[in-house]
Amino acid sequence: MPAVTFLPYDVTVEAAAGAPLLKAAAEAGLAAGFTVEAPCGGNGSCKKCRARLVSGDIYAEADAFGFILLCLSHMGETDLVVDVSVSSAETDEKGRFDETGEEIDFDGEIDFPVKQIEIEIAEPAQGDGLSDLDRLKNAAAKFFKGSQINIPLPFLAELPKCLRGGSGKKMLAYEKTGTEIQAVGLYDINFSPLGLAADIGTTTVAAKLIDADGRTVASRTAYNLQISCGHDVISRINYARDPQRRAELKRLAVKTINNLIKKLVGKNNDNSQIINVSVAANTTMTHLLLGIDPEYIRLAPYTPAVFDVPRCTAHDLCIDAAPCAPVRFAPAVGSYVGGDITAGLLCTPIGNFEQAGGEDLCLFIDIGTNGEIALGGNGFLLTCACSAGPAFEGGGVSCGMRASAGAIENVTIDDNKKPSLEVIGGGVPKGICGSGIIALIAELLRAGLIDPSGRFDDPDKRYALGGGLYITEADVQNVIRAKAAVFSACRTLVASIGADLSEINELYIAGGFGRYLNINNAKKIGLVPDLPNDKIKFIGNSSLAGAHMTLISEKFRRLQAETAARATYIDLSSEPGYMNEYTAALFLPHTDASMFRQLA
Amino acid sequence: MPAVTFLPYDVTVEAAAGAPLLKAAAEAGLAAGFTVEAPCGGNGSCKKCRARLVSGDIYAEADAFGFILLCLSHMGETDLVVDVSVSSAETDEKGRFDETGEEIDFDGEIDFPVKQIEIEIAEPAQGDGLSDLDRLKNAAAKFFKGSQINIPLPFLAELPKCLRGGSGKKMLAYEKTGTEIQAVGLYDINFSPLGLAADIGTTTVAAKLIDADGRTVASRTAYNLQISCGHDVISRINYARDPQRRAELKRLAVKTINNLIKKLVGKNNDNSQIINVSVAANTTMTHLLLGIDPEYIRLAPYTPAVFDVPRCTAHDLCIDAAPCAPVRFAPAVGSYVGGDITAGLLCTPIGNFEQAGGEDLCLFIDIGTNGEIALGGNGFLLTCACSAGPAFEGGGVSCGMRASAGAIENVTIDDNKKPSLEVIGGGVPKGICGSGIIALIAELLRAGLIDPSGRFDDPDKRYALGGGLYITEADVQNVIRAKAAVFSACRTLVASIGADLSEINELYIAGGFGRYLNINNAKKIGLVPDLPNDKIKFIGNSSLAGAHMTLISEKFRRLQAETAARATYIDLSSEPGYMNEYTAALFLPHTDASMFRQLA
Repeated sequence: MPAVTFLPYDVTVEAAAGAPLLKAAAEAGLAAGFTVEAPCGGNGSCKKCRARLVSGDIYAEADAFGFILLCLSHMGETDLVVDVSVSSAETDEKGRFDETGEEIDFDGEIDFPVKQIEIEIAEPAQGDGLSDLDRLKNAAAKFFKGSQINIPLPFLAELPKCLRGGSGKKMLAYEKTGTEIQAVGLYDINFSPLGLAADIGTTTVAAKLIDADGRTVASRTAYNLQISCGHDVISRINYARDPQRRAELKRLAVKTINNLIKKLVGKNNDNSQIINVSVAANTTMTHLLLGIDPEYIRLAPYTPAVFDVPRCTAHDLCIDAAPCAPVRFAPAVGSYVGGDITAGLLCTPIGNFEQAGGEDLCLFIDIGTNGEIALGGNGFLLTCACSAGPAFEGGGVSCGMRASAGAIENVTIDDNKKPSLEVIGGGVPKGICGSGIIALIAELLRAGLIDPSGRFDDPDKRYALGGGLYITEADVQNVIRAKAAVFSACRTLVASIGADLSEINELYIAGGFGRYLNINNAKKIGLVPDLPNDKIKFIGNSSLAGAHMTLISEKFRRLQAETAARATYIDLSSEPGYMNEYTAALFLPHTDASMFRQLA
Repeated sequence: MPAVTFLPYDVTVEAAAGAPLLKAAAEAGLAAGFTVEAPCGGNGSCKKCRARLVSGDIYAEADAFGFILLCLSHMGETDLVVDVSVSSAETDEKGRFDETGEEIDFDGEIDFPVKQIEIEIAEPAQGDGLSDLDRLKNAAAKFFKGSQINIPLPFLAELPKCLRGGSGKKMLAYEKTGTEIQAVGLYDINFSPLGLAADIGTTTVAAKLIDADGRTVASRTAYNLQISCGHDVISRINYARDPQRRAELKRLAVKTINNLIKKLVGKNNDNSQIINVSVAANTTMTHLLLGIDPEYIRLAPYTPAVFDVPRCTAHDLCIDAAPCAPVRFAPAVGSYVGGDITAGLLCTPIGNFEQAGGEDLCLFIDIGTNGEIALGGNGFLLTCACSAGPAFEGGGVSCGMRASAGAIENVTIDDNKKPSLEVIGGGVPKGICGSGIIALIAELLRAGLIDPSGRFDDPDKRYALGGGLYITEADVQNVIRAKAAVFSACRTLVASIGADLSEINELYIAGGFGRYLNINNAKKIGLVPDLPNDKIKFIGNSSLAGAHMTLISEKFRRLQAETAARATYIDLSSEPGYMNEYTAALFLPHTDASMFRQLA
């Protein structure tokens, strides 16, 4: 089979003649920790997968600049070398693109759902009439008097070998579900269990390995390999219409997770210690990981197959952990308010309401391609979602890119209207990421280079950043539409209880994005409400933190279930005031400047 | 990839260069309903997989007669044509090799474990806050008040599409396990459920499709594709030592079953109607189908992993039925007395004891490569197993073959000591099968051509049957050892309760073999006890019949569980009297001729 080598990463994968290069790049991405973008789903329209053919023959036409699009190119009969540095974003494991978040301070004791007991299993004896399973059940029955003990097939398949190693003393890992006992694994008595918490984002997957004390042993982030099938949830849902493509999306999500596990467990590669898995994901990602048709999420009346995923195991999902380890999903509230939000809310008084009391009015904003908003206080909880578009992740903007090495993350404009740039990792800027775009627009406004409606004074309708990078009026309009979607969603939600944004006691901003956001710039363009800075908290990847919390404590699992149950999902498209709010927000910072008085 | 065509069946399969031809033959066998034998497990010793190379180049040496052994031959770079008619046994779907047995007369009503109810599922409505799963559970909860309803992932994956087709009225198939409800499938209200009963034998797999009235819709038999990995359970256990080979055995067993299902459901190929599966198999076949290491079945103290298989589904086993259809295995009694026997006993008063009263002393013999024997009466039940070897299936005998087209099934010898042959399907005889061998030895004895110890008078130590076929003194000795193993096992079991074979009230002979056996010849060589013919019943494939019974009735499932629980497994190798009994039985019919007085 011919092979393709991707530069600058120097990763080589085999691919059959005729195979799309975008797929080969996705496979290669696994090994090197990067992936090529294809927000359009691979139809040639977004041109994000541009690459340069270094050597070899392919079935594709190069454009006028000598570039090819990976999505429209196919392997020929011979080996290829392709340079993707023009398009790819690197995952910096230790740098900016670490979205695993901060370590959590837990209150209350650790209370894992999967527990262990030491049992002593009788040796087999001729004529005793007992199978291995009988002897195991007899030993376990001493602890679980009267309870039904369920032994799944993958557990049974490993039992004979396990029982013949060492003494009869074993550690039985189990989970209690209702009145029944679910066997999880059988180990030596010195066994150290591990847990896995994972946040499955549309763009990014982050995971942590947790020890028996509930602490993080290792954490890793990777791009979701599904990116090659579309950049946002709607593209993915469209892609998933064909059952084979749906299976492909499932396989890519699992591969992303398993690759992270491989890195997390390290060299001895013993994933059988992972007996407990907690996943937080948006509703679409949850459906795709489970192989469920997500079609009806995007069709009226927007009814997903499942909000609260039934118990399943690592084996059911092909996740590389102990086969019978339970995989528990954070429950969703609506089609566009998923488990990532019920997990994230645990990091706020809205979800962790027993600790906080919960009288204060709290607003939670998770900003990504979709913006999810929750408003809670005094026993009520309203949620909604809006489509911000990819602008804050560097998409839909001429020189946009993700917050990884080479991205401009901050801009100031001096009195001579010249830009001064801060680049992630230093060096020559390759593009501009979300926080950089926000800073740039705030500065353009301050310097009078654009007006509050985002229009350039300059006849070229653009501003040059140097090094061939620039921002156009169309880019600014994209960002204005994105920030208007988020801000007007916040306004509408708060207005629905007859309150005003100024009454918010605490504002929580979540998301990988939120961690590097300059809050003053965000206020200047009217993305977030103009509250005093001491009322605003960045909580980073709260979805992963929530998955961690529910992994190690049944109390958080219960709080999360209660939060999901009492949350009301507001569909903004059917809220009468939303369109007016949105239109009013299409201004920098807002048509009603009185809302942003603190800035003055 | 090069391809190999197998004559006379004219089946072509692709196989990579270097692939063993025996494996390619197994794959091809699937399509054509035959398979090549490899009792030795493919090490070249049994020479049963002889074939003739017609064209092409292979990596193998032909023997002096121009034959190759498939097990020692490998694909070359080019296409091959190989004639396997010299070695293969054809499956005659309607003829002798139908081991699906007679239709059963049921007493008592039908009581399927998987039941159905009609439910009405609410239409999705915007803002109702309900997922598909929630609406299903709400509808089902009206019937299963308070019971936990478990929805497995494969059920959930199909739910969105299923709920969008037709009206909200659906048929929910479910199984009650303890206090919980296991969802099996969701269908239109005019749905007709089907069940599958299967007997997984070491050599032969037989299956029946059962309708909602409990009647057989279709039945089929095929060779177990595992034959290419060894002829008896010990060869298979040895083969399974390597985990990859164990996975291969599992795959081959599943493939055999799925191929039968394809034929059973016919052209519309809708196996999703099969919502209920019942399997009877010996202990080793059960382990291999489940992917469990069978190693400890053959190692002292002979402890299998499992006697009573936990609940599993078609999806768990990769069986082509409704994914959540439960697959229930007949429980085993010991390493060599498996679920096929507890199923078969349901066809006798030993297993179906409530109907029969059970005071009579009953003996059950299932004769195959292994012989299994059960002795029951008045509340007790003893079981044992002996290794008969393959002689009664045509193995270990110079011109032996299975009971399929071309096999000599009966022989008489005239006054001139010339044989007269009956051949299955007529035509030129290709070999001699078990019933023919028994008839031949009985006739050789009657005609004075061999003495009661099996020795030939003739200096050539053989007897010619014409057409190049013959039997040797060594063959006769093999058969004598086989019948001695079965008969002495019967004697030992009966003696263990202080009784004598003559006290047996009813003798049941099971097995595909048993259906064509001439009982008088079997008595003449001392294979079965010399009871009056009206006390002897042939019950054919009682394992499949038992699987059918437990498929359609919980009563039989209960009787079977009770039978398995009260059965005692006697290990003959540790019974002091067995070796003496065996030695005494190495005579035609027996050293104690008084036991076979009825024949006189």
